[in-house]
Amino acid sequence: MTDTPASADLDAERFQTVRVDLGSRSYDIVIGRGLLQEAGVRIAAVKPGARLAVITDETVAKLHLDAFSKSLSEAGLDHVVLKVPAGEASKRFELFERLCDDVLAARLERGDAIVALGGGVVGDLAGFVAASVRRGMSFIQVPTTLLAQVDSSVGGKTGINSRHGKNLIGAFHQPDLVLADTAILDTLPLRDFRAGYAEVAKYGLLGDEPFFTWLEDNWKAVFAGGPERDEAVARSCQAKADVVAEDEHEAGRRALLNLGHTFGHSLESAVSYETERLVHGEGVSIGMMLAHEFSQRLDLIGQDTIDRVEAHLSAVGLPIRISDIPGQMPPADTLMDIIAQDKKVSRGSLTFILTRGIGRSFVEKGLDPATVRDFLTEKLTR
Amino acid sequence: MTDTPASADLDAERFQTVRVDLGSRSYDIVIGRGLLQEAGVRIAAVKPGARLAVITDETVAKLHLDAFSKSLSEAGLDHVVLKVPAGEASKRFELFERLCDDVLAARLERGDAIVALGGGVVGDLAGFVAASVRRGMSFIQVPTTLLAQVDSSVGGKTGINSRHGKNLIGAFHQPDLVLADTAILDTLPLRDFRAGYAEVAKYGLLGDEPFFTWLEDNWKAVFAGGPERDEAVARSCQAKADVVAEDEHEAGRRALLNLGHTFGHSLESAVSYETERLVHGEGVSIGMMLAHEFSQRLDLIGQDTIDRVEAHLSAVGLPIRISDIPGQMPPADTLMDIIAQDKKVSRGSLTFILTRGIGRSFVEKGLDPATVRDFLTEKLTR
Repeated sequence: MTDTPASADLDAERFQTVRVDLGSRSYDIVIGRGLLQEAGVRIAAVKPGARLAVITDETVAKLHLDAFSKSLSEAGLDHVVLKVPAGEASKRFELFERLCDDVLAARLERGDAIVALGGGVVGDLAGFVAASVRRGMSFIQVPTTLLAQVDSSVGGKTGINSRHGKNLIGAFHQPDLVLADTAILDTLPLRDFRAGYAEVAKYGLLGDEPFFTWLEDNWKAVFAGGPERDEAVARSCQAKADVVAEDEHEAGRRALLNLGHTFGHSLESAVSYETERLVHGEGVSIGMMLAHEFSQRLDLIGQDTIDRVEAHLSAVGLPIRISDIPGQMPPADTLMDIIAQDKKVSRGSLTFILTRGIGRSFVEKGLDPATVRDFLTEKLTR
Repeated sequence: MTDTPASADLDAERFQTVRVDLGSRSYDIVIGRGLLQEAGVRIAAVKPGARLAVITDETVAKLHLDAFSKSLSEAGLDHVVLKVPAGEASKRFELFERLCDDVLAARLERGDAIVALGGGVVGDLAGFVAASVRRGMSFIQVPTTLLAQVDSSVGGKTGINSRHGKNLIGAFHQPDLVLADTAILDTLPLRDFRAGYAEVAKYGLLGDEPFFTWLEDNWKAVFAGGPERDEAVARSCQAKADVVAEDEHEAGRRALLNLGHTFGHSLESAVSYETERLVHGEGVSIGMMLAHEFSQRLDLIGQDTIDRVEAHLSAVGLPIRISDIPGQMPPADTLMDIIAQDKKVSRGSLTFILTRGIGRSFVEKGLDPATVRDFLTEKLTR
């Protein structure tokens, strides 16, 4: 009875769509190779007649801005481009202010849209601008790193860093559309791809043992860029979308997504976010190993689970131990101070994501800080 | 059957409560004389065990901080005080950044609260800080001006100014509690009380003819500080709460609250927000007169309505004509440029609040800018 147009047939083959279900703020994440070239048409379908401010960084601009801009122009979308330097240092007040001013200077109105073309830094910064200018403008994400495609572009967390820590200033602001072109990832340095893969593996570890098993079997194809890559991105987005739909503002279950992140963030902070030494996904990889080892310490899991996690993370080339980080690390007390200032603290007691097995993580509140400090002291001296 | 405690009986006599109905984000506005002295107990009831950052300005601090701080301490509430200079100039990026950093330095957590003790400037600035630190902290308003009690502390609009205009950067962030101590208004300069009163009169003009009639009969008692003042504040808050509950993010009906504000903002901007020449409520008063005169021009109302509005606003001592503003005003084209950059613009056509009579205002979209410019040209040469 239904007369499906040929283009939709084609779409179903070429692209996967994950729906993030948030009532009136629901949106699609479209995943597949070659989306950049048809971004204009897809954005125009969601925001007809809107003017756009494309926020991107200089590295991404060199590689992908011409193709993206061409696609927008062909779809008749008037747009301005606002560039920031590549790197985490752009997530600061000064650039937030400058971008807000630039968007206003371009006379974008409330119904117009901010587009983030870039990785997590660009997405977080542009998202906070979109949340704040005129108390909230439309926002479209075109993530260009694996990390951004599977993590930061899903769920509406936006923000900048403060001198007190990462992502401490920001907003929850959901996008209207996410376009994840997996072919773009071919241009990503291997180290960045690996770092993003840590978040992919995280979805298996936190709640989906069959997915972790699938990754153990298929990770090489995910790295190589076959249909398995699209599948891994889509399953990761679906996993995050499910959690976010249940708990948008991280009152409860969403905290599971922080598996490995409390330890990971403290390590990133300990090296002053020097990406030569450690990037976010590497911190998450080491952090996930620590979360498993700490769970073992509490008799929640056995050595077999530790071995399996370690084997997979090592196989893809991710660091798994604090000692894998080049250079000197600070003492456990410093790491504990950083953890205490981490925003996942609640009323002085520590909240950690622990696990009872692969795919069986859970939120543990009220952990004794002394237990964690002793564990870290031991890990630092190994 | 119900055993009402004596304290609730007393409360019902001394204080009025307006409920802002926003589902899980609903909150109470408590109104009456002497609330400052029991603020601690009331805040502790809403946020038990929370630590507080009290944001206030130097003028308010001199008058009311000791009493407020004492009330918090007596209720066992640990708090830090963060002061900003009094005046609109504090609504800027630099202070937003400093306050965010100070709140983080004080190690407030997500469940802790930001308290705004002050007028609209402090409320808007502190609210944006509360919306942004850790992507959203609890927020409590203790408005100390009539304007803040009847307008800015209700409805969740927060923000700072940009060099492109007022309130262009911010967030919708609802408070958990609003305490409007009407005795505090005894310390307010008459000019500020009058300016706030313009917003009170607005609620009558936009949708409640009986309230406007009541104000015509009772405004002297409202100024004097009798129970009529509490009544006027409560009816104003209720009017705003009703609109906000229907249209939290100003997609439709909430725009009615902007009666007089598009013209008013353009006048404030035209005098570079020099409060010696014009404060917000005065701009709103002149703006409301202009909105009525423009409605007459479009044959929507007759001279009798104009006369009645003019008589009441004049009686309380508010300015009603552009020529009431001291000093030179810019030409109509400059005002039109300001209006075009105003965030109430949608896709290039102008949106104004017009009226078909007292209490019968409505949103008019798609007004021809030329008509408005001709009207302003005439008003500026009178």
